[in-house]
Amino acid sequence: MTTLTSLHQLRDMLKALPRADDHARRVAKERQQILTKPEGSLGRLEEIALWLTAWQGVARPKLDRCQTIVFAGNHGVAAKGVSAFPATVTEQMVANFQSGGAAINQLCRSVGSDLDVHALDLDRATADFSEKPAMSPEACLEAINKGMSTVDPDADIIALGEMGIGNTTSAAAVCCGLFGGAPSLWVGRGTGVDDATLALKAELIRSAINLYGKQLDDPATVLCYLGGWELAAILGATLAARHHRIPVILDGFVCTAAVAPLAALSSGALDHCIVGHSSVEPGHRHLLEKIGKTAILDLNMRLGEASGAALALGIVKSAVAVHNGMATFTEAGVSERQG
Amino acid sequence: MTTLTSLHQLRDMLKALPRADDHARRVAKERQQILTKPEGSLGRLEEIALWLTAWQGVARPKLDRCQTIVFAGNHGVAAKGVSAFPATVTEQMVANFQSGGAAINQLCRSVGSDLDVHALDLDRATADFSEKPAMSPEACLEAINKGMSTVDPDADIIALGEMGIGNTTSAAAVCCGLFGGAPSLWVGRGTGVDDATLALKAELIRSAINLYGKQLDDPATVLCYLGGWELAAILGATLAARHHRIPVILDGFVCTAAVAPLAALSSGALDHCIVGHSSVEPGHRHLLEKIGKTAILDLNMRLGEASGAALALGIVKSAVAVHNGMATFTEAGVSERQG
Repeated sequence: MTTLTSLHQLRDMLKALPRADDHARRVAKERQQILTKPEGSLGRLEEIALWLTAWQGVARPKLDRCQTIVFAGNHGVAAKGVSAFPATVTEQMVANFQSGGAAINQLCRSVGSDLDVHALDLDRATADFSEKPAMSPEACLEAINKGMSTVDPDADIIALGEMGIGNTTSAAAVCCGLFGGAPSLWVGRGTGVDDATLALKAELIRSAINLYGKQLDDPATVLCYLGGWELAAILGATLAARHHRIPVILDGFVCTAAVAPLAALSSGALDHCIVGHSSVEPGHRHLLEKIGKTAILDLNMRLGEASGAALALGIVKSAVAVHNGMATFTEAGVSERQG
Repeated sequence: MTTLTSLHQLRDMLKALPRADDHARRVAKERQQILTKPEGSLGRLEEIALWLTAWQGVARPKLDRCQTIVFAGNHGVAAKGVSAFPATVTEQMVANFQSGGAAINQLCRSVGSDLDVHALDLDRATADFSEKPAMSPEACLEAINKGMSTVDPDADIIALGEMGIGNTTSAAAVCCGLFGGAPSLWVGRGTGVDDATLALKAELIRSAINLYGKQLDDPATVLCYLGGWELAAILGATLAARHHRIPVILDGFVCTAAVAPLAALSSGALDHCIVGHSSVEPGHRHLLEKIGKTAILDLNMRLGEASGAALALGIVKSAVAVHNGMATFTEAGVSERQG
């Protein structure tokens, strides 16, 4: 399944997704019950370890090869002035990623992850979605397939993120197209825009929703008309990871919005994903409710670049260290609970 | 100041505490404003880096020597049946720490911290505080001084934690003694007790509050009468760290309760401390409100052993990696925000 031949194929593909290994999960759960700690006392760390075992299909997960992938794309809607930064910053930041100077470089080094950066034709912005479809179905498909091709089948876990001036406007449009509600519910200040720009973001989304009408009933069309290259690539990478049963850590608002069409198409499509952090962007909280996920971290961050996903990878590594390394009550000669 | 000669001396010592370096903090803040990211977009990570710079007194903090210290003590009140585990587990878990099999061993290895474990006369439990003062002033002082002596003056950061069957009951009593309110507000299920035991915990605290009355107006007496060896040692270690201007990461409910008498004596006494995680113990949230702290993590944990503090140390390390390692706008050739 490593390429998709049409957007319509997506729906069928989602009917045949690989599923988690319930047996591995049960074995891991039994182990957790005999480790030297009160049952459940490590909370989310225990849940994370079980999620990893279920997707890796082993009782003791491994995280030797961690792959963080950042996709970058340019957005036609940026010309409307929706960002505090000029559109040229997308390309400049890609160069910064490549020379090791960005936040994500330091975070990947800190938590022990490889970093792959993929710039998606930065000289070709999407169309301005408030006036015409951001992408043609063919071009959207190409970006999805590109995203799919970036996933290392041997990775033990994937962390995903993005860079793209103007892309919180696209992400908000995708959410509004998928889940409805007022555009003002989904927009936020992104890199730090003022009130007038915030109102402009909502207005542009309102125009688009009116322009495309019923066509947005199809989640794949929502991605194609309102999304962007890097969003499509993130969706592709998430699908490829699922194919290989590789667990995925999503980053913040834009990254989660990118895969939300999968959740809208099939309720279990994101079961192999956890969300690294809850973003300052107000739309992220609404989106997490819609897809039924609770983020691991909430640190008032709004950078993107997979920064929240990489940071959460550190927590996931600790969860694995605990699960794999702790002694059992018997091994340690510790008494179990009384009565 | 590395020893205290009487509990009364505490109040005077707190008047002469070393303070944060505002100049180092300002220099670090200026650096953050020119790093290649929208201002403030790394949220809590930026605050953590500033806090470290201010206490270490340098513009770029270092975390080469991280010292996690776990103190263990036994509690007379455990004989009343306030825990789901027998009191012998304190000693068994200390052996587990020493042989490397506990959660905290894996977490320290995962985040890169040394681990020191100090068992405080495990064959000598405190008195049952519901009947008589848990510690004599002399014995309490000895435990505080012991705690002080464990801090490595060359450590770049200290993470603190505890082990002690029965100690969530002591911690709740300390909080109730310091801040008032119904005992039921401060108690929780600890290692996992049933409703009847939960009610018993509150009842024992109510007895103690009635028994000691006005004597509990002195925060040092609250620690001495209601606390325990490991709580006193944590308070001592926190004071010694402040003396050396070493930043401290506190763990969950018991650890935070142990240092709460310092906050009650002097409002700025815990400025060098952050709280690693918000515990499942309901008293912890109330306590964090009382001392005006927001925990870094909220992962549904309730283990103790410094587990939440060690996990938060990973986040702190990432905050430093970002602060020290990122390129500036000029270095990376990235445009700053427009208008």
